[in-house]
Amino acid sequence: MSDGTHRGRLYGVGVGPGDPELITVKAARILRDAPLIASFAKKGAQGHARTIAAQWIGAGKDELVLRYPLTTERAFDSPEYIAALGAFYAQSADTLAAHLEQGGDAALICEGDPLFYGSFMHIHARLQGRFETQIVPGVTGMSGCWAAAGHAMTWGDDVLSVLPGTLPEDVLTRRLRDADAAVIMKLGSNFPKVRRALAAAGLLERATYVERGTMQGERVVPLNGMHDESAPYFALILVPGRGRRP
Amino acid sequence: MSDGTHRGRLYGVGVGPGDPELITVKAARILRDAPLIASFAKKGAQGHARTIAAQWIGAGKDELVLRYPLTTERAFDSPEYIAALGAFYAQSADTLAAHLEQGGDAALICEGDPLFYGSFMHIHARLQGRFETQIVPGVTGMSGCWAAAGHAMTWGDDVLSVLPGTLPEDVLTRRLRDADAAVIMKLGSNFPKVRRALAAAGLLERATYVERGTMQGERVVPLNGMHDESAPYFALILVPGRGRRP
Repeated sequence: MSDGTHRGRLYGVGVGPGDPELITVKAARILRDAPLIASFAKKGAQGHARTIAAQWIGAGKDELVLRYPLTTERAFDSPEYIAALGAFYAQSADTLAAHLEQGGDAALICEGDPLFYGSFMHIHARLQGRFETQIVPGVTGMSGCWAAAGHAMTWGDDVLSVLPGTLPEDVLTRRLRDADAAVIMKLGSNFPKVRRALAAAGLLERATYVERGTMQGERVVPLNGMHDESAPYFALILVPGRGRRP
Repeated sequence: MSDGTHRGRLYGVGVGPGDPELITVKAARILRDAPLIASFAKKGAQGHARTIAAQWIGAGKDELVLRYPLTTERAFDSPEYIAALGAFYAQSADTLAAHLEQGGDAALICEGDPLFYGSFMHIHARLQGRFETQIVPGVTGMSGCWAAAGHAMTWGDDVLSVLPGTLPEDVLTRRLRDADAAVIMKLGSNFPKVRRALAAAGLLERATYVERGTMQGERVVPLNGMHDESAPYFALILVPGRGRRP
């Protein structure tokens, strides 16, 4: 539909924490109207965001699936994987840019919020300034998890620290000792290390483990007494704050 | 509609950061169906959450407005104000409890997310366990603001620190020196103090000020070079992280 000058708009669309009904009205409208829906996925699987958004994507819509290079979880910080991932994001940005150059809008969907530890950010960084971009914020995975647990997280002057479980154990322990309220993300095989750091910081009794928050199969359990050796990458640990409350 | 045993369900409903279209589909459904909508407001004004939610609340709906006790911003931590606020939350919880006891559901709305620095938490703490409660998470004010600014906030192993501007200056400075990415909330008359703490931490050049994010009158400006003496309470400062990015 290009007239030779019109360029498409890129939407970065957060689809929320898992329950399809926790998508925003704006995101649902954009998924209905955008001519192309793009999503990230591992090889041979449908992406998590695509699964969440399924009911909001019109039938017969053009779709682009951006497939991550193969990896094992342990190798996420190896130079080889970082190089492969960089090439993947560059190629994905080029593919989207070609579509936008033709004048078509495109919506790239992400679980949670697009600018909070989201893969969309790597595309955004490569296309920012070249195309009109609209970010549609979403309910984060952590908000979904603390809603599922019913835990009020931050009171009064509480500082919230959001910590990736990929950090070294001593850094995690130090940050947790200094935390009022904390969320620990990216668990996976980091789970035993995170558990040790929470114990060292004296926070094991205050911590709640949430898996598949807001989704079918949701699991909310006190961390203390739980001894799993790993956890899904999208599980979280919550340490609610205890600040001022009248 | 009470049969003498059925008790109503309490919904804590986040209505998002400001743009009415950034409410979730679930929140919009609950606001349409719940027989009573409750909201917080200052005397003589409509609450911020009520303004955001206006178009989603059915005509002729029963409403309950919970009016904060009068205060000035400076006195927020005075013993007198804390006592008045405690009495206010207790009375508000009693009013809602009376409605729920009669068998009617009630939806208490909050801007952003109900369990993240939200007034709903003070009601939740008082009614938890007494009534069935469903939390509907929302897009936080900070997600709305970083979407408005187009700033990707957290990369790779970045730690996000969410800091209330009400903290003492030395605490803010220390926390900011230790931050990868930071959000500073609750600005108001704390704004000059927050600005000094950011300068002391060497973060002034990386900071963005966002006022009325996702709303009419939205303002997104680099903090450096901005010398306002105060800021609205719901304005934010964002310091995006600079972590690993392939």
